[in-house]
Amino acid sequence: MVPAVSADSSSTSSTSFTPLVVLELASDTKQEAIAWLLSRIRDPQQNGGAELLVEQLGLGDGGSEKENPNLFLVGAKWQRLLSGAEEVGLFKEFSDGSMRGFTCANKHNFKHFEGDGDSFLSMAECQYIIKHELDTLRAKDETHVPGHPQAKLYPGKSIIRRLQSKGVLIQVFPLHEKEELKRLSYSWYQKVKLSFQPLDDIRRYYGEGQALYFGFLEYFTFALVPMALIGVPYYLFDWENYDKYVVFAVFNLVWCTVILELWKRFSTSLAYSWGTLSRKKAFEEPRPGFHGVLGFNPVTGREEPLDSNTKRQLRVYLVSLPFVLLCLYLSLYVMMIYFLMEGWVLSVHDEEPTFWTGVLLFIPSIIYAVVIEIMNLVYRYAAEFLTEWENHRLESSYQNQLVLKVLVFNFFNCFASLFYIAFAMQDMALLRQSLATLLITSQILNQFMEAFLPYWLQRRRNKKMMRKVQKRKAVAAAELPLAEQVRLEADMSTYLGTFDDYLELFLLFGYVSLFSCVYPLAAVLVVLNNITEVYSDAFKMCCVFKRPFSEPAANIGVWQLAFEAMSVIAVVTNCSLIGMSPQVKAYFPESEMQLILWTVAIEHGLLAFKFILSFIIPDVPKHIQIKLSRLEFESLEALKKKVQETAERLGPYLISGISPPRLLSSCLSPAHRRCERRSRGERRGSSRRLEK
Amino acid sequence: MVPAVSADSSSTSSTSFTPLVVLELASDTKQEAIAWLLSRIRDPQQNGGAELLVEQLGLGDGGSEKENPNLFLVGAKWQRLLSGAEEVGLFKEFSDGSMRGFTCANKHNFKHFEGDGDSFLSMAECQYIIKHELDTLRAKDETHVPGHPQAKLYPGKSIIRRLQSKGVLIQVFPLHEKEELKRLSYSWYQKVKLSFQPLDDIRRYYGEGQALYFGFLEYFTFALVPMALIGVPYYLFDWENYDKYVVFAVFNLVWCTVILELWKRFSTSLAYSWGTLSRKKAFEEPRPGFHGVLGFNPVTGREEPLDSNTKRQLRVYLVSLPFVLLCLYLSLYVMMIYFLMEGWVLSVHDEEPTFWTGVLLFIPSIIYAVVIEIMNLVYRYAAEFLTEWENHRLESSYQNQLVLKVLVFNFFNCFASLFYIAFAMQDMALLRQSLATLLITSQILNQFMEAFLPYWLQRRRNKKMMRKVQKRKAVAAAELPLAEQVRLEADMSTYLGTFDDYLELFLLFGYVSLFSCVYPLAAVLVVLNNITEVYSDAFKMCCVFKRPFSEPAANIGVWQLAFEAMSVIAVVTNCSLIGMSPQVKAYFPESEMQLILWTVAIEHGLLAFKFILSFIIPDVPKHIQIKLSRLEFESLEALKKKVQETAERLGPYLISGISPPRLLSSCLSPAHRRCERRSRGERRGSSRRLEK
Repeated sequence: MVPAVSADSSSTSSTSFTPLVVLELASDTKQEAIAWLLSRIRDPQQNGGAELLVEQLGLGDGGSEKENPNLFLVGAKWQRLLSGAEEVGLFKEFSDGSMRGFTCANKHNFKHFEGDGDSFLSMAECQYIIKHELDTLRAKDETHVPGHPQAKLYPGKSIIRRLQSKGVLIQVFPLHEKEELKRLSYSWYQKVKLSFQPLDDIRRYYGEGQALYFGFLEYFTFALVPMALIGVPYYLFDWENYDKYVVFAVFNLVWCTVILELWKRFSTSLAYSWGTLSRKKAFEEPRPGFHGVLGFNPVTGREEPLDSNTKRQLRVYLVSLPFVLLCLYLSLYVMMIYFLMEGWVLSVHDEEPTFWTGVLLFIPSIIYAVVIEIMNLVYRYAAEFLTEWENHRLESSYQNQLVLKVLVFNFFNCFASLFYIAFAMQDMALLRQSLATLLITSQILNQFMEAFLPYWLQRRRNKKMMRKVQKRKAVAAAELPLAEQVRLEADMSTYLGTFDDYLELFLLFGYVSLFSCVYPLAAVLVVLNNITEVYSDAFKMCCVFKRPFSEPAANIGVWQLAFEAMSVIAVVTNCSLIGMSPQVKAYFPESEMQLILWTVAIEHGLLAFKFILSFIIPDVPKHIQIKLSRLEFESLEALKKKVQETAERLGPYLISGISPPRLLSSCLSPAHRRCERRSRGERRGSSRRLEK
Repeated sequence: MVPAVSADSSSTSSTSFTPLVVLELASDTKQEAIAWLLSRIRDPQQNGGAELLVEQLGLGDGGSEKENPNLFLVGAKWQRLLSGAEEVGLFKEFSDGSMRGFTCANKHNFKHFEGDGDSFLSMAECQYIIKHELDTLRAKDETHVPGHPQAKLYPGKSIIRRLQSKGVLIQVFPLHEKEELKRLSYSWYQKVKLSFQPLDDIRRYYGEGQALYFGFLEYFTFALVPMALIGVPYYLFDWENYDKYVVFAVFNLVWCTVILELWKRFSTSLAYSWGTLSRKKAFEEPRPGFHGVLGFNPVTGREEPLDSNTKRQLRVYLVSLPFVLLCLYLSLYVMMIYFLMEGWVLSVHDEEPTFWTGVLLFIPSIIYAVVIEIMNLVYRYAAEFLTEWENHRLESSYQNQLVLKVLVFNFFNCFASLFYIAFAMQDMALLRQSLATLLITSQILNQFMEAFLPYWLQRRRNKKMMRKVQKRKAVAAAELPLAEQVRLEADMSTYLGTFDDYLELFLLFGYVSLFSCVYPLAAVLVVLNNITEVYSDAFKMCCVFKRPFSEPAANIGVWQLAFEAMSVIAVVTNCSLIGMSPQVKAYFPESEMQLILWTVAIEHGLLAFKFILSFIIPDVPKHIQIKLSRLEFESLEALKKKVQETAERLGPYLISGISPPRLLSSCLSPAHRRCERRSRGERRGSSRRLEK
């Protein structure tokens, strides 16, 4: 555990607390703004504050003047965290084994709740709650942040979001938990024994979003093992006959559908046991960058910027879509130039082979690789700019649009050349070779860029900080004092979410599925890569990046769709590859037309089979279905029984109406009901007595 | 309105009531069973009864002994209907224009609620409520129906379902409302002026399921008009060139996708305004025919028959599926025999054409048509038997399985010969001719079999009854007395649901979309047919059938899927038809392969476009989306504010836990909240005073 800070002199209270989250304000923030912000954070909830504990982080002993003094540690009292857990709608395991929404009123009926202050809420959950409380801290009647007139406020505007969008608030991040992290990293990647990943511990430390990613990575690796096992003999014995193509490809295609469907079931089970499945998402706030004319939200009635939906649609379809298409065209153009150069170099080398022409042979590939990398980078910025400009109201739709844009372009860049080789040049040997080269180089590059480089940088920074501290204090202990630890973490790179990780898996899946019948070894390579990926990603999460806020997630979202789309495209490519293979062509010596018709028919059959399969396999496993319906049934039943009683009790006050499932406290116990009835009986009795 | 019956002597109460629903028991039902049933229906709710009003229908004046005396009229008090409306979860328009779940406690805040006994609930809603109350009338500790030891009961078993499954209860049906029906039928189909159907009135009289069918029929007709308009010139001027095929087909395919997507939006709007969109379906009971070992339902904990899910799956996949495939094969076989006969007859006629060989030409078609009709009939019975034997627990899954079975077979029977002509024989002229013949004959036959024949039969029955009454009573009035009216309705045919109506539309949609580029006039014929179909279906509903119970529905269910599947198949057939046309073939004189590849590429493009289109067009219109989120937001907000207060108030009793959205009465008004606060303030004040 991070040691508790004792409050410094500026604080009004004098309790010490466990710091959970760090707020870093710009060093030129006005003192009045800081004082105002701290008082808003500390204010009790009924006064519109967040009722959290917050202290300024003292400068390191003799800290240099270069360091930003405006670092603040935020924590909360245990009671506050529990009520926050209820506010954010956390689901916890109930005493009967089902998952139920946590409420303070019946906290004692939840499993593992043994008393206040225990480990009922994980640190990640506490940090998530604090983030939620900070995010929903709203302006009252301030027109701007004191001392920063450019940071305009209006009643109901989220203060933290405004500070962030105006650059006053540099970052908010949760602190690592040294001991816990050590335990986690040991069981995750430092153990020698091979085992499953500790998904529950990952979820406890990093939240559901991360845990689902690692769960998916592991699942995906295991799911590819059968394909890899079948692929090896094909590769080793060089089986190049008709059966090979068809059997292997059909197996792969059906297998891809099955594993994606089963993943849905598996992730549903995970999400249920983590309590994110039934959790209703709260009403989404506009993202910080969203701008528009001030108006009243038609749903909430709150004052907030409004922007026309039509205008956004027009931007998407009239600007972004053409831009993406243009980029795809450009990428295609670059590819054609590459093939031209490649052809030209080959002809030069064939004419008069010297050492220099031998070197020249590599030049086009290198140029192409560099250009692609640059294009990817530029496109990524352009996509972010465009999506920002589209001015999406919700963070989720912003993310979806961005993912879609980047996904399409990356897919195109990675696979366009392979498609060209396969279908325009119809050169299977070259296809196999390019596939292998692309797959292996991208894997090596990725692992290097993703984990080892940042690790090395971080390590250097770490050592420097250590040296500095040791120089000053001459402490021998490996433990850094809190102030230094916080500053060190503040300097760590920020983890930008699972986007790039999923994208990498998505492209690997493409390599395996799209051309599986040409290069059966792909699955083996991807399996090997994924095994190292687990370790390097785990390592990266634990040692390289700032701890991310946990993100409640019930599934892998848009990526499920992307993987399914890929598996549909794979059917088309594999069928055409098989149809084009000389072995199959030899089967229809008399008529090429018949061959094509057969290929098309089989392809349609496979596609239809895929759709039927994904329709037949239910997304939610039976036992979870039963648990969910039981919860729903119980609340409906409780509602039916209670609706009458409460109507009698509260009758005169019930004026505004809400739908029945929400009408009523259905969490009253039978004991309460009995008690209720008794008291009503008494009342009736007493009135009768009065009548006498 | 049906006149109110005054209670006969057997009744304990002596009020008169409006009869809403008729129960017909078998004429050999034991008197003790009848007495028991009536008392259970009349018992107050706290004693486990239905608290409804029920009277035996007197025999018609001097009624013959042939008539079944065991007809019972069921009605209810106004208060009982209102509390029933709350129990079934009816949504009604609130005073602010949104749709909210009706609750008795705040009934005065709903629009059109002007006092007890007004027309707030439509008669169809009242009848639906009574049906629900009867269905949920459960056995207490009876082991069997008194006097009928074969009708076993156990605690919690629905009495009505048991009586029905044992043949003691012959039928339950709602009564027609003569005046209302007259008004409805006038505005629906007797007016000379062309206008939209009175969907809201239909829904008021027949319920949402019926209204959605007629809404879909009308929508579908209008949606086909553009296709019909474009089709006419093609047909008239006999445009037989490349452009014709491609432009018309592409338009049709895109149009089909668009209209199906827009229908989803339109039906969502309808369902919202009818209050069925947000309505949660109550927990579904097992269907009456479901049998198995008695056990405890894992969701409700109630005692009911249980049957293994795996066993059902095995039955579906190992018996039903092979059976359906076998039937399809058989149907294919019959078709091949037909084509053989056809060919043989043609050759005989060509050899030596006489009058008799000319007659002989028609024989194969007639035989084939008769055989198909028989096969359809036999298959329908087999499908019902098989689906019954599969022993589905829920009525909905039973219906889905039955629809699927019948749908596939009918699709095959209707279109197999057309597919054979189109793709095996490649005879476009014959295809066009067969299509026209099939379309026109099926339309004429349908209209005749569906409406005019039953009407004629009903009319005869009606007249006979009239004559009988007039003979006895010599009344001149056209109005029948209540007893005769009830007996007349009891003898009317039972409307078996919208299944056959939708099936007919589905097949018509197939004729239009599958081969649209070959026979552009199909859309015109279908539009004409649909216009008469509206009238004949409306007529049939009003004059031929018993009134059906209203069925709450938010969409057209499995039929949406069926229509979408058809539109996907249509892309495939149209693309191949165009690819096969000589005009297009002429475009690729050098290579047939290129033609096919192009066709396949365009087909894939169209399919992808369809999927993207259905993805882009949101299923719920924006303004309804906003209304739905507002309702949800309001209840979440109310919950947040109330959760604390109630926890304080009810704290000690809150032991068993339900998820937060259900935790709390969120329907407390600001007034109440103020009042709450005040009273707490007072309490605090008084305690302070006590402290003093």
